[in-house]
Amino acid sequence: MKKNVLVGQSGGPTAVINGSLYGVVTEALKHTETIETVYGMINGIEGFLHNNVMKITKEGATEFEFVKTTPGSYLGSCRFKLPEDLNDDIYSKLFKNFEEYNIGYFFYIGGNDSMDTVSKLSRYAEKIDSPIRFIGVPKTIDNDLVLTDHTPGFGSASKYVATTVREIAIDASVYDNKKSVTIVEIMGRHAGWLTASSVLARKFKGDNPILIYLPEVAFNEDDFIASVKTSLETTPNLVVCISEGINDGQGTFICERASDVGVDNFGHKMLTGSGKYLENLVKDKLGVKVRSVELNVSQRCSSACLSATDLNESIGGGAHGVLAALKGETGKMISFERISNEPYKMEYGTQDVNLICNQEKGVPAEWICNNGSDITDEFIAYASPLVQGAVEVPMENGLPKFAYRKQC
Amino acid sequence: MKKNVLVGQSGGPTAVINGSLYGVVTEALKHTETIETVYGMINGIEGFLHNNVMKITKEGATEFEFVKTTPGSYLGSCRFKLPEDLNDDIYSKLFKNFEEYNIGYFFYIGGNDSMDTVSKLSRYAEKIDSPIRFIGVPKTIDNDLVLTDHTPGFGSASKYVATTVREIAIDASVYDNKKSVTIVEIMGRHAGWLTASSVLARKFKGDNPILIYLPEVAFNEDDFIASVKTSLETTPNLVVCISEGINDGQGTFICERASDVGVDNFGHKMLTGSGKYLENLVKDKLGVKVRSVELNVSQRCSSACLSATDLNESIGGGAHGVLAALKGETGKMISFERISNEPYKMEYGTQDVNLICNQEKGVPAEWICNNGSDITDEFIAYASPLVQGAVEVPMENGLPKFAYRKQC
Repeated sequence: MKKNVLVGQSGGPTAVINGSLYGVVTEALKHTETIETVYGMINGIEGFLHNNVMKITKEGATEFEFVKTTPGSYLGSCRFKLPEDLNDDIYSKLFKNFEEYNIGYFFYIGGNDSMDTVSKLSRYAEKIDSPIRFIGVPKTIDNDLVLTDHTPGFGSASKYVATTVREIAIDASVYDNKKSVTIVEIMGRHAGWLTASSVLARKFKGDNPILIYLPEVAFNEDDFIASVKTSLETTPNLVVCISEGINDGQGTFICERASDVGVDNFGHKMLTGSGKYLENLVKDKLGVKVRSVELNVSQRCSSACLSATDLNESIGGGAHGVLAALKGETGKMISFERISNEPYKMEYGTQDVNLICNQEKGVPAEWICNNGSDITDEFIAYASPLVQGAVEVPMENGLPKFAYRKQC
Repeated sequence: MKKNVLVGQSGGPTAVINGSLYGVVTEALKHTETIETVYGMINGIEGFLHNNVMKITKEGATEFEFVKTTPGSYLGSCRFKLPEDLNDDIYSKLFKNFEEYNIGYFFYIGGNDSMDTVSKLSRYAEKIDSPIRFIGVPKTIDNDLVLTDHTPGFGSASKYVATTVREIAIDASVYDNKKSVTIVEIMGRHAGWLTASSVLARKFKGDNPILIYLPEVAFNEDDFIASVKTSLETTPNLVVCISEGINDGQGTFICERASDVGVDNFGHKMLTGSGKYLENLVKDKLGVKVRSVELNVSQRCSSACLSATDLNESIGGGAHGVLAALKGETGKMISFERISNEPYKMEYGTQDVNLICNQEKGVPAEWICNNGSDITDEFIAYASPLVQGAVEVPMENGLPKFAYRKQC
């Protein structure tokens, strides 16, 4: 008997999370001998609990070609953690729903927390001897999943960060007869992969960004100010990249120090980012012109800097998930295994999802240098292949044409 | 006797200010019968005062092809206001320098303040009967210059804003089962042209951004909160675009309510934080999930969203400046005159620079509707032609290849 596919997206979106969806859907629709219907969960497992699903058919999917270059989660997302206790009623309710929809293959596209969902559902399936196969398809701009060389979403986010920092450095240098400091705050609360990517922005050795600070190394304000002061002597328009998650190594984020600064009209503490805090610090200690720029959500949703390598791998990862499930694998996450750097060669694999969920992979200590203020060439060799290749996003009336679900 | 060209850039950079430079330089280098050498002022008129110039030759300019798609000011910029008193010593010093460099044609690429420089220099030239011709080539993302349909730099910035707001709206809608407000703060201190461009982000009638606030209309907090509340009923993930310069109509910026602000060299108030202020206001009054995003400097330096129309016009404007000077015009700014909207047709012209400098053109009142919270279709018809066409930026190793002056 033919079975149906259920696919969902979860957690924060990326520029290529829909590439993975496209990969799952297009591959699944090929296997008409075993797969009857492809269902998408609207707003992930949380939506599915409320029977919020859509059919994705070959016929109705003329607009689906645009999905692969559309940022955000086409199916909608959720942040919903399943209970630790596998005896909780929610599991029997979910599996009853799976049965009603005749689901044979379940694909969940997401990061850490989403892999936790895949882990729990596959363990419950084992417990009740359900034949449904559960596969995780990774995505995260943070690149912090273990047992995979990298994750889809990181390459395009890296490319966005490197491109934007290069442009900001040029913008900052137009008044090159005056000293200035520009602090760029980059996403990544616990892992510094994305911030480290700013090193790719250098056009030549010694170019901006001169200083780069990751959350993996304890941040020291005095060392920071001393480095800024020294660097300004040779680079009058200094660009410093910092992770939003820089911390003192004792569990306190640098931005938390900003809450001492003051309150607004409503009596709320001024919750500013790490960049704003360091902007004020530099102004106070060195008295030079300084500004901070928060790259914000465009890091995960810009379609203008898509990496072709990243998009192709995200599509391939989704497709590989379907093939793995059809081969009988379950409780697995699709992994990306690097065979070589030059030329860049990668192979898809599968890894036990139970070993991945709730783990975090930081930037290796040996790739961080200069007392925690710079990144080594080994990182560049690692990250550079992932940003290669441009993607032509379909345009309409001068702007990118994006797919969207018609909502009622 | 052959004369030399002197060209400079001034004020804040744009994504295509180097397109105008490219236009001036390539056109000037063609006229070998009248023009000997092209000099670039490093850091504008301020740098020229210190003899900070570079020769731009056909031979040395192999990298110059990359200049036209490089953001920022290739020659460096300045914010330097010449004295009102034309008897000030600085004028005789400057004209002595012009003579030493055998300058016959002076081109200054910039906005309001730069046109002020062109105005003063041309008036001084008239006073002392100097034959040097002074031409202003407009640039500003603010689009606030009078006597021209639009200004180079605005089209690409518009395209960046519309694209990014469209992406942010998609990003904001992934949790479409929860209510949220996203406030996007857009550049434009006194003129709302760029903020108005966010209307282009709508994929269909009634799409985000639902509310758009310009500095041209007095901002009322109670009306704003009421509109946000009503809009949330039909658009659960609401996107609101505001100009950094929204104000109470009495000369007080909304962001000033959050904190005291400083002033820049020209006495302009330094703005940050209208978005942050309104974020706190919405949180306080409505208690919904809310965040603010400041688009920041990428609006003026992103090369990823260059408009081909804008870039071509910036190059054409620079070239037209040279042709106008060679015809004997002086004290003029190159203008852009729209002949028709469909098909879009534009012609270059010249206008008296004295009537342009220190003036500001806002968005016409009849293009702002819904009690100052929306933009009419007339604006869309005006702005849409300016964002058309994509530019392929040369890439190297996965990132845009930009030109830069080797600094010693």
